[in-house]
Amino acid sequence: MTAPTPGTGVTDVYFDFLCPFAWRGVEMADVLRRERGLGFRLRHFSLVQGNHPENPDRKAPTWWLHEQGAGEGEPFQQGSLRAFLAAHAAARQGEDAAWNFTLALFRARHERKAELDEETIRNAAEEAGLDLDQFARDLADDTGVREELGAELRDAAALGVFGTPTFALPEGHAAYLRFSRLTRDPKDAQDLWSLYGEVLRSGAGVETIKRPR
Amino acid sequence: MTAPTPGTGVTDVYFDFLCPFAWRGVEMADVLRRERGLGFRLRHFSLVQGNHPENPDRKAPTWWLHEQGAGEGEPFQQGSLRAFLAAHAAARQGEDAAWNFTLALFRARHERKAELDEETIRNAAEEAGLDLDQFARDLADDTGVREELGAELRDAAALGVFGTPTFALPEGHAAYLRFSRLTRDPKDAQDLWSLYGEVLRSGAGVETIKRPR
Repeated sequence: MTAPTPGTGVTDVYFDFLCPFAWRGVEMADVLRRERGLGFRLRHFSLVQGNHPENPDRKAPTWWLHEQGAGEGEPFQQGSLRAFLAAHAAARQGEDAAWNFTLALFRARHERKAELDEETIRNAAEEAGLDLDQFARDLADDTGVREELGAELRDAAALGVFGTPTFALPEGHAAYLRFSRLTRDPKDAQDLWSLYGEVLRSGAGVETIKRPR
Repeated sequence: MTAPTPGTGVTDVYFDFLCPFAWRGVEMADVLRRERGLGFRLRHFSLVQGNHPENPDRKAPTWWLHEQGAGEGEPFQQGSLRAFLAAHAAARQGEDAAWNFTLALFRARHERKAELDEETIRNAAEEAGLDLDQFARDLADDTGVREELGAELRDAAALGVFGTPTFALPEGHAAYLRFSRLTRDPKDAQDLWSLYGEVLRSGAGVETIKRPR
């Protein structure tokens, strides 16, 4: 196996806060970012939008999450949109703020089974050490953060993202990676990431490895 | 990467002659079998059955391919059933006969784009060096080969097979493996097979790696 070379480009990680597999993927990326110097960019893909009946063609959606009202749709739609907008507001305070908030919110949702509601988001912002006044101001007029979300959703659609986490490597390979065991151990994270890269770069042109369920 | 140890068990490979990815998978298995001494057992899974509207629960089908008449259904249903029954008749002449026939029929279908009709099957039987009289007799009363096919389809359903090729390793791991580049090179086949095994045995519990399309 070949270890990825730090500093040779940034991998986009597409995720939805609704998804426990995305949580594990973002934890893995965070370990690699902090402990191995690899570059990752946090980006959003909406599972509700991806599975919406008005979007039969994944690459050409007509229904977009960022265009929905805050109170529209099922609770998981509202929670996902609320979480995305909050994450964009957090990112106004820098890259570390974005990662800290994203991880705090993921852990609240998937470790402690909190709902993606206002209280959970406020607690995650506190846990992430955000400037809460600025955070509130950036969320109060959400035009800007909605536009940023829209740009990510458009990029995800163009790539054909269908589930989270999906990693898009700097050299162009991209794939959904679903794994069941959370790790925050640098060696385990590195092993998984190297194996994933080896699959994508294999000369055989591997398109899918999927266990029956 | 750890090379598989020859002689430590037999991997089941589930396939449908309709599927070009199954063809590549069986070619890979054949190389590993001949050049590396690995054990593989040819087994059938029906894509028509798996995707049949009467079978919403993949693990509990009510519509079974082996119970269908030879002239029933769409041409691809008829071709798939005809090919499966012929492969079981070929297997009566031994394991090498089964592999030779299976490869000859796959190549006719996917390299030369032949239909899975009587003529293609007769040509594949000739190419595989079968005793053609015995082959015809074993197909004329197909009760036995239909029962053998039914047993495979039941095992595939119990395993939750959803696509081909699916490999079920002797230690219990199983997954669909889709790759786009045919290889008959022993080292390339070994590299792909080792990588696939490493993914299945990874401590991360990898469930899916899938590129967007």
